[in-house]
Amino acid sequence: MAHGINLARKLDEITDHWSPRTVTQSNGQDVMVVKVQGEFVWHSHEDTDDFFLVLSGRLTIRMRDGEVELRPGELYVVPRGVEHQPFAPEETTLLLIEPAGTPNTGDPATAAPRIVL
Amino acid sequence: MAHGINLARKLDEITDHWSPRTVTQSNGQDVMVVKVQGEFVWHSHEDTDDFFLVLSGRLTIRMRDGEVELRPGELYVVPRGVEHQPFAPEETTLLLIEPAGTPNTGDPATAAPRIVL
Repeated sequence: MAHGINLARKLDEITDHWSPRTVTQSNGQDVMVVKVQGEFVWHSHEDTDDFFLVLSGRLTIRMRDGEVELRPGELYVVPRGVEHQPFAPEETTLLLIEPAGTPNTGDPATAAPRIVL
Repeated sequence: MAHGINLARKLDEITDHWSPRTVTQSNGQDVMVVKVQGEFVWHSHEDTDDFFLVLSGRLTIRMRDGEVELRPGELYVVPRGVEHQPFAPEETTLLLIEPAGTPNTGDPATAAPRIVL
């Protein structure tokens, strides 16, 4: 019997920051949840757009020509190739969607692991 | 200056049911919001997975071998080729993600229009 995926319950299993967990896949993309706090590194993904939906807390996505502030229920897609730095002033939870295998820093050498929950 | 997309505000503009509105695109997929109530038709998408995230209300996805019940913050991906019938016992709002151009009934002839908000 199939079951839905409860995002809050998946997030309850996470104790670290900036380490996305894949909860399912859809059309070749990883659907992930992540807890974040503080600043991530500046990075870009040359070939993939970067989907952020805030579930709780708040997220600022800094870009070279301005920034976007997101609260729960707000989303933003950083276009491919655009340098960005996510920043969360408090602990924040996100739904992320990216093509499977995309390193979260844009660089496999420095990417945090993506664990399947 | 870039802006986030507030899903509740987008949904406030919608007065009909079962007519998804595209709010943005990401990696060739349409990111949509929709208001639903009652039963949709049984259908399948031969080549695309069907992503449902409940934002408010509740949704049952009936499939031939069982059903999935979703509440706010819960998601389910109907795999390609699987016949399904969404049912909402009350007015319910959803985030949907599908490859751009996918008809929502699986059949272009009977698909509801997909309007960009």
